[in-house]
Amino acid sequence: LDQASREQAQERQQQLTKPPGSLGELENIAVRLAAMQGRDQPALDRLAIAVFAADHGVAAEGVSAFPQAVTAQMIANFSTGGAAISVSAKALGAELRVYNLGTVEPLPELTGVEPRIIAPQSGNLAREAAMTAEQLEAALLVGREAVDTLAGEGRADLFIGGEMGIGNTTPAAALSAVLLGCSAAETVGPGTGLNNAGVLHKVKVVEQALALHQPHSDEPLELLRRLGGFELAALTGAYLHCAKLGVPALVDGYICSVAALLACRIQPGCEDWLFFAHSSAEPGYRLLAEALPSKPLLDLGFRLGEGSGAAVAVPLLRMACTLHNGMATFAEAAVSGSDR
Amino acid sequence: LDQASREQAQERQQQLTKPPGSLGELENIAVRLAAMQGRDQPALDRLAIAVFAADHGVAAEGVSAFPQAVTAQMIANFSTGGAAISVSAKALGAELRVYNLGTVEPLPELTGVEPRIIAPQSGNLAREAAMTAEQLEAALLVGREAVDTLAGEGRADLFIGGEMGIGNTTPAAALSAVLLGCSAAETVGPGTGLNNAGVLHKVKVVEQALALHQPHSDEPLELLRRLGGFELAALTGAYLHCAKLGVPALVDGYICSVAALLACRIQPGCEDWLFFAHSSAEPGYRLLAEALPSKPLLDLGFRLGEGSGAAVAVPLLRMACTLHNGMATFAEAAVSGSDR
Repeated sequence: LDQASREQAQERQQQLTKPPGSLGELENIAVRLAAMQGRDQPALDRLAIAVFAADHGVAAEGVSAFPQAVTAQMIANFSTGGAAISVSAKALGAELRVYNLGTVEPLPELTGVEPRIIAPQSGNLAREAAMTAEQLEAALLVGREAVDTLAGEGRADLFIGGEMGIGNTTPAAALSAVLLGCSAAETVGPGTGLNNAGVLHKVKVVEQALALHQPHSDEPLELLRRLGGFELAALTGAYLHCAKLGVPALVDGYICSVAALLACRIQPGCEDWLFFAHSSAEPGYRLLAEALPSKPLLDLGFRLGEGSGAAVAVPLLRMACTLHNGMATFAEAAVSGSDR
Repeated sequence: LDQASREQAQERQQQLTKPPGSLGELENIAVRLAAMQGRDQPALDRLAIAVFAADHGVAAEGVSAFPQAVTAQMIANFSTGGAAISVSAKALGAELRVYNLGTVEPLPELTGVEPRIIAPQSGNLAREAAMTAEQLEAALLVGREAVDTLAGEGRADLFIGGEMGIGNTTPAAALSAVLLGCSAAETVGPGTGLNNAGVLHKVKVVEQALALHQPHSDEPLELLRRLGGFELAALTGAYLHCAKLGVPALVDGYICSVAALLACRIQPGCEDWLFFAHSSAEPGYRLLAEALPSKPLLDLGFRLGEGSGAAVAVPLLRMACTLHNGMATFAEAAVSGSDR
């Protein structure tokens, strides 16, 4: 972070023709981006969105309202432009790339989809570790690759990670419970649409996983290996790499925020490079939000994933830059300052 | 409202490739806009922003952190493009027009500013009525004129009202107290930046006004006349006229929400045409929000006015339309639906 740019931007915010602080969070965004980008007038012209997709062995326990085949079907939908994130990416002028880490239903070659198959699905975390050490390393590397390819060497001003994986609120709930030190009953929710009986069953599956793995919150990589999934690991790798390369990242909802929190536990300081876009309607998110390094910008009841909540928040970040750079100062506009 | 279009849009939302309801408030926005626009695929291409500006006699009581001259200075800043709403309007491709209802400091002819001078300032509501009946009628008419000019006969898909007037959180706090049936101490806040002593003094000024006028919450026009101001009345007239013409309106923060609530009390059903954009950091807004017909979309700590909070929310409404119109259905994308 560039402290001189931060201070210049802070100073500029005080001189713009508005009561100090009256643009709230948008002022903080502009100042943080200035510090990240090392210039007092930040900009977010080029956006990169990487969606990491993978299937989950724990789906065999019946933890999702949708069949596992939907993961592969949605990857095809990302490719043909019909999914929420595809439509948003196009509207924002963002580059969208999908990384397929492994699906139960095989897929042909698809435009915009990079096959990075680790296995057809992760291990069933209720009965075994979700990943081997080698699988974890491979998944983390895909995240790093995505950031390098899409945002390295100034290719993007902002990185957004998204995810798709039927069943992935189950590992997210298990990881949240350990990271937050609370119970499965507190972090498990309906995901894509379980009924009450389905949620109660999902709680039992997560409890079984926690009893089996006896995880420790101070071993975040081992936590991720045992209770995570390929796309969760790729996201974690991506956020770590954003911090390393100095690329601002905008974090989506529940799944992405779990990965981001893991990244911050693995590498303190990572949080300096993260914006949190959107609260999730998933109940576990409320607890998670209290542990996040900054407050999410939006709370519109999203629970879709894909990076869709982050995409919707992009115009707010862009407007923060536009206002910061484009407004007149009190001196320029000959407007009187505060009396007191 | 067109119920057939509403139902078609609702039906479409259920068929898009996402769990039903997972785009939260953006789904409601698309469905509401479809009903307002009478088409199942809504759009928000053309935006109109009218900023109503006026000075307040109550400023003589020392209720603002800024000198009264700032109202006129900011009108000039709107005209030359340096204010937050000017910068936002340009970024959004919106037409921006300023209606000057009267300032203590006189202004020359300015590009984009319509002089509609009622008086140099409203009456000091702590000591007399803010407006005569004729002044109230003139101010309401300016609001109607703005909607007719900028959004009538299909000239805009969305109307945004903004305001500027040093001292105008004082009438807003007085009106809120009456509309909500609570005390001045509950609705008065720091506005543009009063310190604690300033806030306590402002409470006394509002208490004095309430004691003098003995207002009744079931006489909204008389309330507005006694405790309002020119720009508050113009906004009220504008929202009433949006509902009459069938133009969707996006309501800004504290001042605009008070005017919108008055419009809904004057003409029940008006709320069908209103979206609420942004919570205000002004303390009185929290109470006001509970009485509003729908929840504001954003809560980013804004307390600027001008329509700036509404402008920042526009991309959310646009994205709601883009997603609604552009996403594939389950059938189109050959994606499986929910199991249960």
